[in-house]
This record gives sequence, C-alpha cells and structure tokens, in this order.
Amino acid sequence: MLLRMSTLFLRTLREDPADAEVPSHKLLVRAGYVRRVAPGVYSWLPLGKIVLENVARVVREEMNAMGGQEVLFPALLPREYYEATGRWSEYGDTLFRLKDRKGADYLLGPTHEEMFTDMVKGEYSSYKDYPVTLYQIQTKYRDEARPRAGILRGREFVMKDSYSFDLDDDGLKRSYEQHREAYIKLFDRLGIDYKICFAMSGAMGGSASEEFLAPAETGEDTFVACRNCGYAANAEAVLTPPPAPVTGERPALRVLDTPGTPTIETLVSYVNEHYGLGVTAADTLKNVVVKVRVPGAAEAETLVIGVPGDREVDFKRLEASLSPGVPEIFEAADFARHPGLVRGYIGPQVLKELGIRYLVDPRVVEGSSWVTGANEPGRHAAHVVAGRDFEPDGTVEAAEVRAGDDCPRCGHAVAIDRGIEIGHIFQLGRKYADAAGLDALGPDGKPIRITMGSYGVGVSRAVAVLAEQRHDALGLVWPREVAPADVHVVGTGKDNQVEVALRLAEELQAKGLRVLVDDRPSVSPGVKFKDAELLGVPTILIVGRGLAQGVVELRDRLTGEKQEIPLTDATARVVEACAV
Amino acid sequence: MLLRMSTLFLRTLREDPADAEVPSHKLLVRAGYVRRVAPGVYSWLPLGKIVLENVARVVREEMNAMGGQEVLFPALLPREYYEATGRWSEYGDTLFRLKDRKGADYLLGPTHEEMFTDMVKGEYSSYKDYPVTLYQIQTKYRDEARPRAGILRGREFVMKDSYSFDLDDDGLKRSYEQHREAYIKLFDRLGIDYKICFAMSGAMGGSASEEFLAPAETGEDTFVACRNCGYAANAEAVLTPPPAPVTGERPALRVLDTPGTPTIETLVSYVNEHYGLGVTAADTLKNVVVKVRVPGAAEAETLVIGVPGDREVDFKRLEASLSPGVPEIFEAADFARHPGLVRGYIGPQVLKELGIRYLVDPRVVEGSSWVTGANEPGRHAAHVVAGRDFEPDGTVEAAEVRAGDDCPRCGHAVAIDRGIEIGHIFQLGRKYADAAGLDALGPDGKPIRITMGSYGVGVSRAVAVLAEQRHDALGLVWPREVAPADVHVVGTGKDNQVEVALRLAEELQAKGLRVLVDDRPSVSPGVKFKDAELLGVPTILIVGRGLAQGVVELRDRLTGEKQEIPLTDATARVVEACAV
Repeated sequence: MLLRMSTLFLRTLREDPADAEVPSHKLLVRAGYVRRVAPGVYSWLPLGKIVLENVARVVREEMNAMGGQEVLFPALLPREYYEATGRWSEYGDTLFRLKDRKGADYLLGPTHEEMFTDMVKGEYSSYKDYPVTLYQIQTKYRDEARPRAGILRGREFVMKDSYSFDLDDDGLKRSYEQHREAYIKLFDRLGIDYKICFAMSGAMGGSASEEFLAPAETGEDTFVACRNCGYAANAEAVLTPPPAPVTGERPALRVLDTPGTPTIETLVSYVNEHYGLGVTAADTLKNVVVKVRVPGAAEAETLVIGVPGDREVDFKRLEASLSPGVPEIFEAADFARHPGLVRGYIGPQVLKELGIRYLVDPRVVEGSSWVTGANEPGRHAAHVVAGRDFEPDGTVEAAEVRAGDDCPRCGHAVAIDRGIEIGHIFQLGRKYADAAGLDALGPDGKPIRITMGSYGVGVSRAVAVLAEQRHDALGLVWPREVAPADVHVVGTGKDNQVEVALRLAEELQAKGLRVLVDDRPSVSPGVKFKDAELLGVPTILIVGRGLAQGVVELRDRLTGEKQEIPLTDATARVVEACAV
Repeated sequence: MLLRMSTLFLRTLREDPADAEVPSHKLLVRAGYVRRVAPGVYSWLPLGKIVLENVARVVREEMNAMGGQEVLFPALLPREYYEATGRWSEYGDTLFRLKDRKGADYLLGPTHEEMFTDMVKGEYSSYKDYPVTLYQIQTKYRDEARPRAGILRGREFVMKDSYSFDLDDDGLKRSYEQHREAYIKLFDRLGIDYKICFAMSGAMGGSASEEFLAPAETGEDTFVACRNCGYAANAEAVLTPPPAPVTGERPALRVLDTPGTPTIETLVSYVNEHYGLGVTAADTLKNVVVKVRVPGAAEAETLVIGVPGDREVDFKRLEASLSPGVPEIFEAADFARHPGLVRGYIGPQVLKELGIRYLVDPRVVEGSSWVTGANEPGRHAAHVVAGRDFEPDGTVEAAEVRAGDDCPRCGHAVAIDRGIEIGHIFQLGRKYADAAGLDALGPDGKPIRITMGSYGVGVSRAVAVLAEQRHDALGLVWPREVAPADVHVVGTGKDNQVEVALRLAEELQAKGLRVLVDDRPSVSPGVKFKDAELLGVPTILIVGRGLAQGVVELRDRLTGEKQEIPLTDATARVVEACAV
C-alpha cells in the first residue's frame, strides 16, 4: 500500500469541531478519519476506513482462530422474529422501526440473537452437529437517546457479534472460556488497554458474564477496581464482604423522640446530642420501600430494603440483584394503601407483622445494632438488633459501592474507575433457544434444549477507544496493528526531497510496508510535521534539510525519539523500526 | 484457509426451495450459501460469505488500482440530503423511510450521490484538489415492488458505488474511460460473461452511459446484440438507421372508406382487398397521442408520435428519447378536449393546423408514402407522402426494436438477448453538483462547477450472476477467483482415507491454497461426491478406494475430467491445477 498525500482524499483541520467534547471525537474529525452525517451517524474517510478495516481484520482473525464461522445477516429484519421473544416492544424507542411498501413491519437489527438462533435451528438437528460458534461483523442500529462522542456511541455502528450453541452447561462454559481467551488475544493485538470486569452478581441463575472495559476518563461506565489484586467488576456485580456476626449483650431496644430529623445527618446529630449515643451515619439503618414486578406475575410485591444510612440505594445494583424482577419507586399512593409503613420513620421491627419481605445489605449481620425508624411519626429507635428485634428475609446487594470499600477478593480499598465497554461475553443460557424451540435430537432420540453464549465486540467503537487511550497533545498515536500505515514518509524542502521521499516510499512498499508519503508540493515543513503528528502513524521518516548531507530523520511517534540516519540505511532502518 | 466439513456450518439440500424459480436461487440455497429471511432479504452462510468477500476483494483491488479511494457512508441517512435534490419524494415507494425517536425523517440509502457530493464539498475547495474518485462497498436498500430470484434482485444488497469529480468535460471523459477499463478488468477477473451495452441514446445532453449486462435467460433486462460486429445496446439506446430518402412521382393523396378496420391487420386486409393497394403493415403509419410533462413546466404538451404500423411504441424508448420530459397516456378525457384528434383515425395531415407537434420514427423519411388515418371516423388515407402531405417536427426513437432489425453499426440483423445488469457507468454531469453548489475555486479566483460520473457494480448480485452463468445439472461451477476454496479434498472409505485426506488438506494449505476438506465420518461416498459437485469448488481431489493402490483422483469440476494420480504426486498436481 502506498498512499500519496498529494492525491489522498484528506483535509486535516486545525480547529476542534464545535460539537466534540471528548478527545477521540475531536482528533478523529480533525485528522480527517470520520465526518458527521447526523447525530450518532458518521461517514468514514479513507484513512478512517483503513483503521476500521484493520480492527475488523484482527477481530476476524482471532474469531476464525478460535473456530468461529463467519456469516452475515441482514440489518433489515421482519418484525416476526423479534415479536416471538417480546423484544419488538421491549426495546422501546431504541429500536428503529419501519414499514415496507406493503405495510409490513421491519426493524433495523440492534442485535441478532433471534436471527442466529433461527439460523442454527434451520440447519442443525442432531446432537452430532454441536457445538458450533457463528459470528458476523456487521452494521447495527440503535436509536440511542443520547448519541455522543462521535463514533464512541453511535446510532449506526459496526459490531462483531457471535453466539455459541452447546448441548450442555459444561459445553457453554468451554465456549465461554474460548471466547474469553480470543478476546484477550484480540484486544491485546489491537493495543487496547482494558480490564475484564465481572458483570453480574450471579442473580441471573448463576450465568457468568464479563465485560471488557477500556479505562478512560470519558467513559460512560463506572467500575470497581482493586489496585492490589487486580479485581475488577461492574458496580452491579460487586459482592459486599460481610463482616463477622456480632455477639455479646446489647442494651434493650429504646424508642426515642427525634423531632425535626428528616435526614440521616440531622438524625445522627440529634441522637448524639440529646441521647449521647455516639453513632455515625453508618450505624443507622435506612429502609427503602420498593415495588417489584416479576414478569408474568399478576401483582407487584411490596419490598423493604435495609441499607446502612451512610449509603444510598443504587437502583442499578438493586435491579441486577432482583432480576428478573423489576424494582419500581414506591409512590405516595402506594404508601396510602399501606398505613403500617410510616414514611420517613420505617423500622424493620413491624415488617413481619405487616407481611412485607425485608432484604438487607450484607453488612446487616446477625447481632448488629442499629438506629432506625420506630414506625411512628417523629420517633426513631436505638439498639435495634438484627436477629433479636427483627429477622431479615435475606440479603440483597443494593447499597452503593464507593471508593475505599473493601475489595471482595483481597480486602484492600477499591477505587472507582471510568471505562468504555468494548466487549462483552455472556452465558446467555436457554432464553432464546426456549423462545425458538431450538433442540437437538439426542442419542436416545429425546430432544436436548440448546444453551447459548452471546459475545460482542464494538468494532467501530474500538477505533474511538484507541483514539481515546492513545493520543497526546499533538494528535493520534496508533498502535501499528491498526494504524492507517506503517510509516509516514515526509518529503519537505525545495531541492529533491520530495523526489527522494517518493523513491524511499516505493522501496518501503516493495519491502511489504504500508506507506503514507507526504509528497504535497507547496506545503510548508511545519504543516507537514503537524499533520504527521496529528495523523498518528507510528513511524515517521523525514526527508528534509539534512538530505544535502545524506541524512534523513527517523521519528517514533509514540516516544517522540528522533534519530538522524544515513540516507543509505533509511529503508533498512525503517523496516527494522516497523518490525517491532 | 482450511475448512473441515465435519464442523463447517453447512447443510446442503437435495430439493429445490419452493419459492425459487431461477437456477442461481435454487443452487445457492441448495448448496447452503444463502438463506431467506424476508422477501428480497437474505442471510449469507459461511461459504456464501467467503464468495461474497471474494467478489468484494476483486472489486476493491481494481478500484484501488485505478486510483479510487475507499470511504464508507452510513446507510441510515437524514432526509435533508435527499430533500435538496427532490429524490426524497421522487423515489416513491422504492425508498425505505423511517423516523427516529425524535420524529426526524430518515431513509435507508438506495444510492449515495448526494452524500458523495456533500463529502467532496466538505473537504475540497481549490481546483488543485481535483480530480478525485471515491468509492464504497456498502449495503444498500431499495424496497423493490417485486424482489425476485433470491439475491439477484434483493431489497438489501451489497453494491460498489463510485463517483468521479472533475473540473471539466474532458476530465469526466477520462474518469469514465478509467472506470470502463477497471470494470472490464474486474468483470474479467470475476469470470463473468458480460456485454457492454450502450445505455442512452444521447437525449440526455450527450452524456455517455453504458451498462455491463451479463447474458442470462433469466435476466430482467433485454438488449440488442449484433452477432456480426459485437454491437450491444439497451433497447432505449438503439438508434434506427434511417433509410435513404425516397424520390420520384407519387399518386395524389386519396381518402378511402375503411369501415370495420379497428386494427392495423384489418386495415391492411381491407385496403388490399377493396382498393388493391398491395401494402403491408409496415406501409401504414400509426399515430399515437401522448401527453408530455417536462419538470417545472406548467402544463403537459400534447404530442403525436408516428411509427410504422407493424411496430408498437416502446414506452421505455419513448421515455428515454423525451427525457427529461415524461410521456403519459392520452386519456379519453384528453381526447374530449381535442375534437380535432379523431381517435383511431388520426393522420398527420391536420396536426400543423391543430398546433400539435408531430415526431416520427426515423423510417418515416422525406418522400416515403403511407396509409394512415384520414381524421374522419371510418376513413383512412392512402399515398400520404412525408414532406408533401405532412411535415414532421422531428424524429423520435419510440418504435419497438425487434430481432432481425438492422444493426445500427454494421447493418446485419440483430438479436434480442436477455441479461442482468451487473455494472453501470454514467457521465452524470452537473446535476448533483448544481443541487449542492459544488464548486472549485479556479486559478483565476472564479468558481468552477464540478462535473461528476457515477459508477456502480452489484457485488451481491455478481454472486447470483456467477451462479446463473456458471452451473450445470450437478451444481455450481465457480471460477477460481471467487470460489469458496481452491480445492475440495474428499476423503471417503473405511480405511485411512479421511486421515490421508486431512493430511493432504494440511499440505495443500501450507502451499498457500484455500482448502475445503470433506472429513465427515459416516457419510456415504455418493453423498460426498454429490455435495462436491453441488458446492462447485473448481478442483476436487478424491482420496477413496484407490488409496490402497497408492492412487487418488483429481477432478476438474468444470470439464468433468478425471485422472488417477499417484498419492505421492497429489500435492504438486493439485497446486499445478490450481495455478491455472
């Protein structure tokens, strides 16, 4: 490959685009890799298309190496497939829906579980056919409420999605592990810095799920990271290490007048001042009422969640814990129907009597003592002891996770980091096989319900993530595997520099390198250097003023290192630099 | 590449699919290359995906070789771009339209003229920037009224579309020629049999346009082909060679009673029987009234078209000739408003008086004599001489073209063939540049309006066309460049044949060949042979009964030639066969 900048369809910009907030968006637009067409909808210019293809190639090679077989589904899909699994409506506004000329309903595929399941059902019938892993690299559509950050969260984007089909849980685990290994290889090759985060606490029937998150300040996802042992997890997946049970004598429960204490903070001040309790917010027990709807159930269940008063209930964690039940806010009207629940003064002491289930944070261990509501307006209770004054119906991971919390694995203080999801592996189980009736005929003639895994890589997003993680004040710094070229040869000067640059470019191309050469006439050296830094090709060879003395300059874009080398060695030295 | 049929996601079918009418559709489904998802919407299975990618690769290589630069546009496009050129509504039902969650209008791109024009306008400004050719290989959407023949005419399909941008007409001609040469190379490499057909008679301002049509019995397009000189053209583009003007004395015009002659046939019989004229249908002059709407004009023009009575008016030819005017049927209500036009008895003698333009077939030369209407019910006129009794306002290519007509180039009789459009090159001119205001700043500081060419290749369609042109009773016969593999190694027998087949497959892969190996246990030799023929890999190596004697069989899928060769020579011989 030899690209000449004199004819390359590329115009770099000196200014950041007005709508760009994050570095990857600014740089990919400024360096002429992408252009905006509509919110979350982008075109790829020649250099961007090369980088996108490089990412896709690496993903494809690693998927093939692990035994994945590539297929390609349409993006335009009839409603019927998604109706069967309920996702036609479940997807809500995120689904692009349209009608054809006959009025039939179609959608633009946001993800293809239904299609893969149907395809395997169409081709395979016997247990001997399995396992199989299919994948595609395809354009997907999601009508995001807030498309943002250029190609980081687009409405049209390129994704690799794959599915494994196995006869049993052990097979699924093997397929999952193979994907996990393939993802490690492919993200390593792409040069992306990532953490593998536990993504699920196990509430969904023990199925494993992990996310590959690329740490980035501009990331939309937060995750818990332990600097000591390397543990990483989504907030939803963090398990709270329970303290040891507390034993020994405790004062009897005591009801206290606590007027004017609408918040935990005011409550703590009041009881310390008036009753000398010497407690902190962490010693109070906050009780939050929710309604939980389980799909298919006639009515929502009223549920109380107890967490230490220094922590908020994290609704995403609560949702993950209660899944498939969906928690909802307990409204004023709901309180009106439950006079036993005294808003602002709920204590667990009465819940059994009221027939309401009570789930507590794992920190609320047997014997622990709390300040909590007394179920009367204006009154709280102290010395309310778990196992003595109330009996929880179980524990729930609902309290927010905070920096400094104990690492569930090693006990050190964890940090909360931000990241961008670039991959997801997930033991899906039998949900889609159940919906489609995907069975294999077993050796005994009986049907075996297939179990599936679902695995995704954001291909176009990976380009943005690399730009996000790999840039400096001057511009992009591509890892070689995805860079638009191996070497950027810059010819600058009024003598024969451009001519020599072109000759070197051809020699380097002949050596198998992908070469970008700046052969633009009447462009100043300063502009050419700035462009080379902005474009981010890893190796830069400058044919400039030194040419008269028979020297050229070799630059490393990442380290900034510059070396003068003899012209006669240039080809060999560049080949060597690019082999690293 | 080494694909093992024991694990390949492939199930061939013995029966043709019920909805398939054409061979390519039947075979691509039976051989497990594609599967239907919805009308005109297909999924690609692993072997199909490989063939599709092979076609795309060849197209890409030839586009790059001619200096094209690859970009990638979204398929999801906001209405505004297509509103500016009027195509949002002009496209009618063929356009898939949808709304996003905010109610904004979008479409799925059927073709990207507007987007390419806008992209160039965004990046380029000076005359020094030009010329440039951009292309993409992308999924396109057209809501065809009658999607048919599998992937031959789909509603979601893969297309290569490119556009050239030039400063002047000479530049456009050069870009057009470069594309023409690139297309010849790429279709030759793909192994497609094609004809380059003139696609436009020159009515559109002299712009050149040619179609690459693949001759196929099942084709939807007809074209005129001369077996003598190789001339080929769309019916719309065929120019009628005009006969020499007729000179000499002629009888005076004579009006005849012709009762009961509603058709040309009955008219000819009647005048020959009652008046002894001795004429044929070709001697009668049929006059067809149409309304012509020119975009932007306030009213439609009434126009009469005169063609020899033995030919019908071909509305597509008429449309092409009158473009940008659009001809419409002259309805009963229109006749009511023009009492001078006596339906069924129109002769050109009165048209000048009525102020109606009269365009004639090129065969209606000066001095030619006709039997035609007398502009009175029940009466016709004989000896109506062009230039004496009426004066045409010009000629028009409107009469149907028939097999046996004179070739416009060499005069031999032409044939009418059927074909499938696989490529189109077109000097588009300034239409889209005008709509977008795409100018380059000239050397004198004045703007230069850019002129464009538009060039398309049906990438997914090419797969179907190859299947259509290259098959036999047993199955597909792929040209090597697009075949899913170079060699299909079949191991069959109960001894160590499969083992040896796998070893050979690995050796062949090591030699750089793309190998498909049938290593399926417990599948009969007959089924394996049938599958090999159906799948259509060009070279087949059979490791079967002869193995005990140290021989294997080399088959050529195209010629059917079979040779026994020593096992020891197998790798070398296959490599040799695949190098052809």
